Amino acid sequence: MRDPRQIAVVGVTGYSGLELARLLLRHPSLETPVFYLRDANGTACLAERFPQFRGWGEAPLRPLGVAAIRSSGAGTVFLATPHEVSAELAPQLLNAGLRVIDLSGAFRFHSAETFTSWYKLPAPHAAWLGEAAYGIPELYSKEIAAARLVANPGCYATSVILALRPLVESGWIARNTSVVCDSKSGASGAGKDPRRDLHFVELDENCKAYGLFAHRHTPEILEHTGLSESQLVFSTHLLPLARGILSTIYVTLDPPQTGPDVEALFRKFYAGRPMVRIWRAGTLPELQHVAHTNFCDIGFVLDSSGRRLVLISCLDNLGKGAAGQAVQNLNHMLGIEEQTSLQ
Amino acid sequence: MRDPRQIAVVGVTGYSGLELARLLLRHPSLETPVFYLRDANGTACLAERFPQFRGWGEAPLRPLGVAAIRSSGAGTVFLATPHEVSAELAPQLLNAGLRVIDLSGAFRFHSAETFTSWYKLPAPHAAWLGEAAYGIPELYSKEIAAARLVANPGCYATSVILALRPLVESGWIARNTSVVCDSKSGASGAGKDPRRDLHFVELDENCKAYGLFAHRHTPEILEHTGLSESQLVFSTHLLPLARGILSTIYVTLDPPQTGPDVEALFRKFYAGRPMVRIWRAGTLPELQHVAHTNFCDIGFVLDSSGRRLVLISCLDNLGKGAAGQAVQNLNHMLGIEEQTSLQ
Amino acid sequence: MRDPRQIAVVGVTGYSGLELARLLLRHPSLETPVFYLRDANGTACLAERFPQFRGWGEAPLRPLGVAAIRSSGAGTVFLATPHEVSAELAPQLLNAGLRVIDLSGAFRFHSAETFTSWYKLPAPHAAWLGEAAYGIPELYSKEIAAARLVANPGCYATSVILALRPLVESGWIARNTSVVCDSKSGASGAGKDPRRDLHFVELDENCKAYGLFAHRHTPEILEHTGLSESQLVFSTHLLPLARGILSTIYVTLDPPQTGPDVEALFRKFYAGRPMVRIWRAGTLPELQHVAHTNFCDIGFVLDSSGRRLVLISCLDNLGKGAAGQAVQNLNHMLGIEEQTSLQ
Amino acid sequence: MRDPRQIAVVGVTGYSGLELARLLLRHPSLETPVFYLRDANGTACLAERFPQFRGWGEAPLRPLGVAAIRSSGAGTVFLATPHEVSAELAPQLLNAGLRVIDLSGAFRFHSAETFTSWYKLPAPHAAWLGEAAYGIPELYSKEIAAARLVANPGCYATSVILALRPLVESGWIARNTSVVCDSKSGASGAGKDPRRDLHFVELDENCKAYGLFAHRHTPEILEHTGLSESQLVFSTHLLPLARGILSTIYVTLDPPQTGPDVEALFRKFYAGRPMVRIWRAGTLPELQHVAHTNFCDIGFVLDSSGRRLVLISCLDNLGKGAAGQAVQNLNHMLGIEEQTSLQ
Repeated sequence: MRDPRQIAVVGVTGYSGLELARLLLRHPSLETPVFYLRDANGTACLAERFPQFRGWGEAPLRPLGVAAIRSSGAGTVFLATPHEVSAELAPQLLNAGLRVIDLSGAFRFHSAETFTSWYKLPAPHAAWLGEAAYGIPELYSKEIAAARLVANPGCYATSVILALRPLVESGWIARNTSVVCDSKSGASGAGKDPRRDLHFVELDENCKAYGLFAHRHTPEILEHTGLSESQLVFSTHLLPLARGILSTIYVTLDPPQTGPDVEALFRKFYAGRPMVRIWRAGTLPELQHVAHTNFCDIGFVLDSSGRRLVLISCLDNLGKGAAGQAVQNLNHMLGIEEQTSLQ
Repeated sequence: MRDPRQIAVVGVTGYSGLELARLLLRHPSLETPVFYLRDANGTACLAERFPQFRGWGEAPLRPLGVAAIRSSGAGTVFLATPHEVSAELAPQLLNAGLRVIDLSGAFRFHSAETFTSWYKLPAPHAAWLGEAAYGIPELYSKEIAAARLVANPGCYATSVILALRPLVESGWIARNTSVVCDSKSGASGAGKDPRRDLHFVELDENCKAYGLFAHRHTPEILEHTGLSESQLVFSTHLLPLARGILSTIYVTLDPPQTGPDVEALFRKFYAGRPMVRIWRAGTLPELQHVAHTNFCDIGFVLDSSGRRLVLISCLDNLGKGAAGQAVQNLNHMLGIEEQTSLQ
Repeated sequence: MRDPRQIAVVGVTGYSGLELARLLLRHPSLETPVFYLRDANGTACLAERFPQFRGWGEAPLRPLGVAAIRSSGAGTVFLATPHEVSAELAPQLLNAGLRVIDLSGAFRFHSAETFTSWYKLPAPHAAWLGEAAYGIPELYSKEIAAARLVANPGCYATSVILALRPLVESGWIARNTSVVCDSKSGASGAGKDPRRDLHFVELDENCKAYGLFAHRHTPEILEHTGLSESQLVFSTHLLPLARGILSTIYVTLDPPQTGPDVEALFRKFYAGRPMVRIWRAGTLPELQHVAHTNFCDIGFVLDSSGRRLVLISCLDNLGKGAAGQAVQNLNHMLGIEEQTSLQ
Repeated sequence: MRDPRQIAVVGVTGYSGLELARLLLRHPSLETPVFYLRDANGTACLAERFPQFRGWGEAPLRPLGVAAIRSSGAGTVFLATPHEVSAELAPQLLNAGLRVIDLSGAFRFHSAETFTSWYKLPAPHAAWLGEAAYGIPELYSKEIAAARLVANPGCYATSVILALRPLVESGWIARNTSVVCDSKSGASGAGKDPRRDLHFVELDENCKAYGLFAHRHTPEILEHTGLSESQLVFSTHLLPLARGILSTIYVTLDPPQTGPDVEALFRKFYAGRPMVRIWRAGTLPELQHVAHTNFCDIGFVLDSSGRRLVLISCLDNLGKGAAGQAVQNLNHMLGIEEQTSLQ
């Protein structure tokens, strides 16, 4: 019988992986996690490879291999790997009886067609797609607690879905009107590989839009808000900062509402969900309020007609947008307080 | 008879004023401009007060006084002053026979009610409101060339109006659909006065929305695009950078169009207007492309249905958004090449 | 008998105060701290005033008053106040039997003359100067554990003293040679008051030196390294970032040493001191390695002659340079693990 | 007979190359420059490849080839290429009768041994080393005006040499004391190639030292200041900004001097040299004062003993540190005003 508190982590080199390591090393309910890297380079411990971890507690670093993970006794594995790698590793680890939390996009869709159409790749893991829980605990905590496989959501998608879901369920969004989501992200969301457009000089003092009508987080948003493809307009921008996503979301309401009504809707929807913080009507969160946290902060302004609503949804793309939410999912799988290690 | 090439500048201490000084000092068709400051402090020349101008050519700095400007022989005066100050100074200088280019919001509306309703101040200068030309030369070059008073537009307004005007005139914007303008600006647009929220630490690694449904550039956009107040949603955000505005603008088209059609519309509209650069369909400008220039760059992406159009409009808020456009207006008033000193 | 685990905090509005609040709220060995503000504005809890604390646990916010603190039962008080305020409050609180950790410069010198000469103020608290422990626990842990009053050191001073102290004690620094300390700091070290030179636009893309031969941390460095005033050259620079100090320190060695010798000296000196991390000879720490931590990282490069040594000493000015070190001092005063709440 | 005003530019893709293109396109005394790229990709003009140049005037872009440059009629060629490429191209172009301004390190040393020892490469161009003028016009204007080959200096070296040269020539630097040069640079100085350590996230909110006792600009500084290798300590740091170098330089004076004496020394030394701006004794330049200019600004503070001098020397590493100085050298070679196109 595998112990779910024995943790394996695959792929610690990226920004999400490093943040995950930080959160797991200080998590009070876990055994020391073991890290696996394709390129472990003979170094035996995490801090030798990543000197910023010295003094945080030691953890073993081992060459990646499914057999090694299987025989290690680990009960839960985090995959902080590209989707191609996750697609290959996850089924093997699941078949060996481990529970898997995958931070990539490989298992985020119930439909293989959706995956293939947006990722331009076959979806070989179709057998597992139906079983994966979509890892936003504020929406799917029961499924996550019971799941063998959790697909940790996209960072943009988390910020947009958490802001829209209460409105969608309320039926207040006017039919046949566009919902515009203008999302802005720091550079750590774009990954760690050196790229010309992520060179410091290219992004410093710059701001640019990218991926219009083509961003891979689009189908996640459609699936978990229920908006139609023709209703949603989703855009993404790069900002000259390291961490954080701020989504400005434009919705038309019908019938018109008051500020207190909208606030009450959100407060009720997220009651008992401490990681989503609702701001008072007319006040707005900023990126700095959520940087280095696992919070998603949501605020809004309603115009005087009560019809035009602008929402601001903020989170840290490495926190609630990736590693933090992954640990929150783990906490649900272990049946412990969801904030554990996240404050 | 006053010489319009003799220039007075009031209010050089702000960011727009300093940029204006830079552009005027290197302008090849002007006499040396004279700078006026309420707090001239007995310093006799610009570089003594602002050491960054040493080596750029000398220019006198004098205590502010309408009489002094009148008797100096200047024919054209730039007001880089707050709107209360401009409202007071401009009529006196106009009555003395000078031409005025005002960078504040004091004379941007034909209607005194509009001014009062957005600026919460009486509009004592009502006699002059009707005569002021709105200083976007790509739209109003004839009026500007002939004007005694030019109201230099708001920085956000310039970026939005230049992007929307061709679409409005084409009649392609679907009726009863919202036009969403999500604008993002660097910190120099917020002025130079020390403010808690503009402290380096407060804005660094931050992004925040502000002024929703309340920004003073809204009525300029309404007046010069012809959109109705219920159709326009205009939001503004602060970015952690010094210079530049990027507006992401969401429009629904009816009937649907193709990318080449939209590109052709813009190219035709701005033919012979070198300071507006149109990007090829599907390619998008970035802030860095326009920083430290007088260009407004416009690009767009159209979705596959041809109905949903996302425009990106970029400019430097101190260039085309303020001082650069002011000099471009001066060039039209002098009847010389509009790019003079702006490359 | 007062309980030292009952904590009062005066002055939470500055950057050090907010960081201190964060560290104390999550500290596992303390009662809920009570916060005192001159301008408490009738708000009853911390998160109401500072919304970024919502979800971190509640804490009372009360109007500042010595009587209120005295009668609250608190045993230890942190003063995150300007030195004039600390100078006034500390003696009253000490006389009431509280232990005091003061983050200002008011009690950092044994000599009243030194204080007066650098701070241009009388030193009315002379009676307490001799009793104050200088709060670098790696050097003075015994004094701190027993102290009623701890003077938390300056941020620059901490980075320089920790790097120089082992060399001074070894006797390796060549006589009559200068020791140059070129320190670079992020903007949060300059405080939170809006100032023209701390406006985002003024510091963005900028770097500047300030306070040459006049910085108030100089006498702390002289006193705790034993260098003479003519030997030390200490300069400070502002960097366009929020948190962190990096000091580059230039020392001439006599007799010449090898890299392993220097590394061994530092490792031995800081053995059992986990918050100072020594880097391997020839490798250098960076600001990012210590941001948001309580570590001071020290690395060095020695030239081929073994005579010219360049040390790099990094810390977070709000962590080990202020609030973190204050909590580390508290831990010593309470007799608990010094890293508690600091990882 | 070749016309020196007909310009060829090799290697426009790097940051120095792009800045050079900007300066040459607006230069009033030149024919339209022709740009050569190894990878010209069939595009025929500069703005097609680099859209930020649209509206700046057109210029041809051609595939790189020595024969093509030779037959183009160009009289002067700029090499904005890596030193290996410059080492190969320059002799061929010189032999064809062109004058060459090389921005790389290939021809900066009179001694082939120095080049080989620091660049770890053979110096095949030894025949040309003796003939190259070192391109700091404030020191070597006569040599530059007459030269067939100008070696444009390193950016760090320019900032340090300009600050130290007057002191060296005055004989005021105390014998046997170290001269410490602590230089800080923005990221554009490190080149445009994507590198892990230049990723936005790695440099944002970071500062780090690099290249201690190993930086390739060291031998330039030694040769043009006359300091001995044991006297100079030169360190380099990366800052989170795009453009600019600030060098803090620590000198011991013997005999002691006064502030006015030091200021007078510098003013006399740089009299008639408008691109070096001397600050009043006790005032210091900042990076923002020189960004996007060709100025080198020098200020200093002297301690009360008159013995310890701290100099601040600032320039834009792409301006006076590279492309701007290259154009300044061209102006001397053409016998025209040295500031032409540089204001």
